[in-house]
Amino acid sequence: MSNSYGNALKVTLFGESHGPEIGIVIDGLVAGTKISEERIKEKLSLRRPSGNISTPRSEADEFRIVSGVFEGKATGSPITILIPNKDTRSKDYSAARYIPRPSHADYTAFIKYGGNEDYRGGGHFSGRITAALVAAGAVISGALEEKGIKIGTHIKSIYGICDREFSEYNKDIDLLNSMLFPVLDEKMGEEMTKAILKAREESDSVGGVLETAITGLPVGLGEPWFDTVESCLSHILFSVPAVKGVEFGDGFELANKKGSEVNDAFTYKDGTVSTETNHMGGILGGITNGMPVIFRCALKPTPTIGKEQKTVDIKSGKDITHAFVGRHDPCIVHRARAVIDAASAIAVYDLILRRKAGEI
Amino acid sequence: MSNSYGNALKVTLFGESHGPEIGIVIDGLVAGTKISEERIKEKLSLRRPSGNISTPRSEADEFRIVSGVFEGKATGSPITILIPNKDTRSKDYSAARYIPRPSHADYTAFIKYGGNEDYRGGGHFSGRITAALVAAGAVISGALEEKGIKIGTHIKSIYGICDREFSEYNKDIDLLNSMLFPVLDEKMGEEMTKAILKAREESDSVGGVLETAITGLPVGLGEPWFDTVESCLSHILFSVPAVKGVEFGDGFELANKKGSEVNDAFTYKDGTVSTETNHMGGILGGITNGMPVIFRCALKPTPTIGKEQKTVDIKSGKDITHAFVGRHDPCIVHRARAVIDAASAIAVYDLILRRKAGEI
Amino acid sequence: MSNSYGNALKVTLFGESHGPEIGIVIDGLVAGTKISEERIKEKLSLRRPSGNISTPRSEADEFRIVSGVFEGKATGSPITILIPNKDTRSKDYSAARYIPRPSHADYTAFIKYGGNEDYRGGGHFSGRITAALVAAGAVISGALEEKGIKIGTHIKSIYGICDREFSEYNKDIDLLNSMLFPVLDEKMGEEMTKAILKAREESDSVGGVLETAITGLPVGLGEPWFDTVESCLSHILFSVPAVKGVEFGDGFELANKKGSEVNDAFTYKDGTVSTETNHMGGILGGITNGMPVIFRCALKPTPTIGKEQKTVDIKSGKDITHAFVGRHDPCIVHRARAVIDAASAIAVYDLILRRKAGEI
Amino acid sequence: MSNSYGNALKVTLFGESHGPEIGIVIDGLVAGTKISEERIKEKLSLRRPSGNISTPRSEADEFRIVSGVFEGKATGSPITILIPNKDTRSKDYSAARYIPRPSHADYTAFIKYGGNEDYRGGGHFSGRITAALVAAGAVISGALEEKGIKIGTHIKSIYGICDREFSEYNKDIDLLNSMLFPVLDEKMGEEMTKAILKAREESDSVGGVLETAITGLPVGLGEPWFDTVESCLSHILFSVPAVKGVEFGDGFELANKKGSEVNDAFTYKDGTVSTETNHMGGILGGITNGMPVIFRCALKPTPTIGKEQKTVDIKSGKDITHAFVGRHDPCIVHRARAVIDAASAIAVYDLILRRKAGEI
Repeated sequence: MSNSYGNALKVTLFGESHGPEIGIVIDGLVAGTKISEERIKEKLSLRRPSGNISTPRSEADEFRIVSGVFEGKATGSPITILIPNKDTRSKDYSAARYIPRPSHADYTAFIKYGGNEDYRGGGHFSGRITAALVAAGAVISGALEEKGIKIGTHIKSIYGICDREFSEYNKDIDLLNSMLFPVLDEKMGEEMTKAILKAREESDSVGGVLETAITGLPVGLGEPWFDTVESCLSHILFSVPAVKGVEFGDGFELANKKGSEVNDAFTYKDGTVSTETNHMGGILGGITNGMPVIFRCALKPTPTIGKEQKTVDIKSGKDITHAFVGRHDPCIVHRARAVIDAASAIAVYDLILRRKAGEI
Repeated sequence: MSNSYGNALKVTLFGESHGPEIGIVIDGLVAGTKISEERIKEKLSLRRPSGNISTPRSEADEFRIVSGVFEGKATGSPITILIPNKDTRSKDYSAARYIPRPSHADYTAFIKYGGNEDYRGGGHFSGRITAALVAAGAVISGALEEKGIKIGTHIKSIYGICDREFSEYNKDIDLLNSMLFPVLDEKMGEEMTKAILKAREESDSVGGVLETAITGLPVGLGEPWFDTVESCLSHILFSVPAVKGVEFGDGFELANKKGSEVNDAFTYKDGTVSTETNHMGGILGGITNGMPVIFRCALKPTPTIGKEQKTVDIKSGKDITHAFVGRHDPCIVHRARAVIDAASAIAVYDLILRRKAGEI
Repeated sequence: MSNSYGNALKVTLFGESHGPEIGIVIDGLVAGTKISEERIKEKLSLRRPSGNISTPRSEADEFRIVSGVFEGKATGSPITILIPNKDTRSKDYSAARYIPRPSHADYTAFIKYGGNEDYRGGGHFSGRITAALVAAGAVISGALEEKGIKIGTHIKSIYGICDREFSEYNKDIDLLNSMLFPVLDEKMGEEMTKAILKAREESDSVGGVLETAITGLPVGLGEPWFDTVESCLSHILFSVPAVKGVEFGDGFELANKKGSEVNDAFTYKDGTVSTETNHMGGILGGITNGMPVIFRCALKPTPTIGKEQKTVDIKSGKDITHAFVGRHDPCIVHRARAVIDAASAIAVYDLILRRKAGEI
Repeated sequence: MSNSYGNALKVTLFGESHGPEIGIVIDGLVAGTKISEERIKEKLSLRRPSGNISTPRSEADEFRIVSGVFEGKATGSPITILIPNKDTRSKDYSAARYIPRPSHADYTAFIKYGGNEDYRGGGHFSGRITAALVAAGAVISGALEEKGIKIGTHIKSIYGICDREFSEYNKDIDLLNSMLFPVLDEKMGEEMTKAILKAREESDSVGGVLETAITGLPVGLGEPWFDTVESCLSHILFSVPAVKGVEFGDGFELANKKGSEVNDAFTYKDGTVSTETNHMGGILGGITNGMPVIFRCALKPTPTIGKEQKTVDIKSGKDITHAFVGRHDPCIVHRARAVIDAASAIAVYDLILRRKAGEI
């Protein structure tokens, strides 16, 4: 149990990969917020598999809003977005019912739910479910943009091939939000694509790192003990399938530094307290300081690969080797971008509402 | 607002660095759990500043349990542990009231609370507060040990100087839990100590990485969307001051790998499904798989250093340079170990209770 | 914000009276629980308007389960039930957009949501939404029945006309659960029906009291401070439209009594501690004592009546009189029975899961 | 587990009747709120046993604030108030360890906590714990008063002897808040006192009803499904020991009425929408409408009485009769007033913060 995230804003996610519909309930969006179906479509398209670097499963991602929106605006009641599942090939999965994919949720779900889980296509653990999260994120990030808050993510690296750094945040964010394969250096993007195609040829997969910037945040979001900005963001980010590491600002690199090297000096800029550098990623003591919030998520390689792997047959109780057939992504990093953006928008909006509640 | 963590087990933390007492309420510990005051003392001693590599502030960490324990056992009602503050030198701080320390919570707290925060010694943001967390963790990890669950942490690195890998988890954990400066390779520990002393001499500070192993966990803890084991652990870990990165299993390194390189092959071991490797850190699909849960926390260098730094004077509204006097730690990595262990125990116990609730 | 109820079991309700669909997400139902669509139909039929004592709005209450159920059993993932809205006549309402019905939510919703609420048919405040609650309750009470826990409600009174007392709980409950107009004394039921029809003729409405019994509960459900059984039940019961009073056991009558008159003497019965009387309604110190849990809900008369009433026109800012046209219920007490049963099932199931979590 | 109440404001209650200290943590009080220790003392004195109509246990109710207050104002961090237990006579209780008092929590606590509960004086279930709630309520109602929100409660009835109705809310509230035995009609108060003294002579106890009015609330507090004002208030009110019924506005009396009799006509008053009557108790659709919020709590007679009663001896497994010695209250209605006021203040403040969060 716990398919909800958030406090003042709450999202509740439901659905299975091969069930009739997946969906999400958004509770707490401020009444009167404009809801753009166009924006939802656009964000869903950024997540959709495309070209030869993704799964051939074609997801139309048609959606419908069945509650909480009236005359184009949020009513203040829960907004529910439904996305029907289509193009499901459940037969691909039934053959391997008792053969858990290495590093996938098959085995843990089987034990946790006593074999009652809908195992087809990963069921409720499927990356498919993230489509609903992206739809909700589109609604919420739209509301944030109206308040001057922008969120953008680029592929920091895939299989060790690195993109360049952010240079001008807002400009870069706008650019990234228009790209299907979001990189700041197109050449490096081509190298990454080659690595993905090579993995695909080898029936293998590759991982990568996504780096996100959030600009326009007010000072004072987040709570010490235990809802720091890092806590709240990491909580939802680590719910995104494949994410195995999250770091803020200079993150792990800070561990190798001296305080004098990475402390961000305060300075007045246009009459406001600012910092000269941003090694802390816009968060001090768990609370936003007005600088861009910067973080990176490490995504493991897609666990489902076509190569023969060692695993077990739970039914017979024996070690076996197995090659998993089906339609899989050789890399989900670029598709995960839309999910990370959505998750970030949800976490940030919740923190803003909560700060509001602290200013009675 | 949100000084509570947890669902089925909930801890609520309170207190300021220079207030009369700090403390914690533990709600949900199963009635009948044995409570050892000796264990609390022991764990507090692992967090206490010691020798010349820590702050000279001497913290006796006397504590008293004022509720929830009767005849040595948990009653089922909330357990409250209080720790009085002593040896506080508030004057050290009042001078710099309007001069926020770079990379510390001073500035963000000032804005967030409108200048009403108790600024002395970092107030509620102070690392001092973690003493209460450690006390609670001692109670809870004691309960976990009775169920065969062990938690241990070593200093993976300080200022880039690395300890060796875990070799035998349970043995290593026992060893680490008896050490004030927890390293697996004593020689590297000496190098680290030297780096800390050098930072101290330079009125500077250094960061590091802590690596934690949790053994004995059952399969099936954690919830997909949005309370994965990674989500719940990272949530509380990122509440620990100085933590700026958290990664599970091979973490960020996974991003540079192929699926075939890091997928953990399943295999039967003593009749139970196990994995040959543990690149995923014991968590698949957000749920424990029975292997040790492994994670690392990156800790930034202590922000408070004696060196002169650029900052601002909020009162005069001017950029200034300032050298912060006071008693500070040149490194808090070794002391943070006890906090990370405590936080982990709290998160794990909560997940166990929640799994129980799912098995009606 | 807060369309969710529960802790270990959580339900999230969404939809508006005249939107495309209403629905509910059930999160936390134990995996493997049998799900009977037949049972959902049956419970929905108990809530449906029927005959001349209800609104002529015909609600087919077709529903579909779009997640969380696989091969007839709960998967452990959220179960989502959708009910499309049909036979909506939105035009009935637009005329009176700015004329709030006395004692209805029109005015408070208008202010709360700044005029963005879907005002048609009461929108999210409509009794219509309770259909989804009833569907969820059917699933959950089915699970409770498998554990020997029964819930039944009779109309204690309508417009002052009283039913007889419960005599034999389990037998009475079975009887009531098969009746559309649930009374223990059919003659009194006829009197009640007459009162309703008279109210209808007069374009008026009448209120009543529902009395519920829950049998088969284990000892020990509920938590002192602040989740007593009374707290948790009343919380959800007071969310049911029209409920303005809730009392447990002898309730308000206890205020007129001496301790010696109403203390329930303990006694051994078949080797188990039992009580000779049940003035406390099966709850001591906020915790179940193994006796039937008994409570009553007072329901106000339906606020929407056809009679001319004094109200205001918010647009013109003037006092007016107005007769509200549309299809309304002269009494919703008998229909609310299914809602109260559903709400009770949800609260009880949550308490059971939570008790389980306390027994690690 | 669940000794916390609230969302945006959260209180956590701890302590046992005969433990070292009881206390409460208040999390979410807006930074800068003035904290008056004098006010806390005053409110505690209203709850304290006094004269011959209460227990002879003398409770000094000394308290200390150990966190969250700095220079007389809330810091924004959790406020913790501790109250040491004094004058405890634990021996009174040990004799009857295995003899549960009828209608008291003794038996249910014993089963729930497996005999680990601190049984002395009711332990965590004791009315004693409400002193901490009253202290917290004093802080919070002080903050509410600064915003023009007043809370007052009178004894509506004791053992059937009734006080007069509220006539002028704000004036009556001021009067009641200065009285130890809060009645609007002093003569009826004397009758009530006689009834209490008679019960005391008979080693018996009597129950009563408390009626509360809250004025100055803004329109729009409360949430439909499932956090209506009634839901939130009743949740905390039913946590107060002895409360067995809660009703809003005309409450149970509404069940005997026609819509045309009790619908509250809207009318403009000084340019604001108001209602001519207030049968609904200031709440429509679960949301405040700007009229005074009115509710009544039924309190059962104190279960602990000196008379011989039938009960069981859990140790021997036999039915027995027993006269419970110790210091008990023949009536707790007047003392419970301060608790009801405190609980109401907590619930209202939380609702206000939550409404704030909905207005981003």
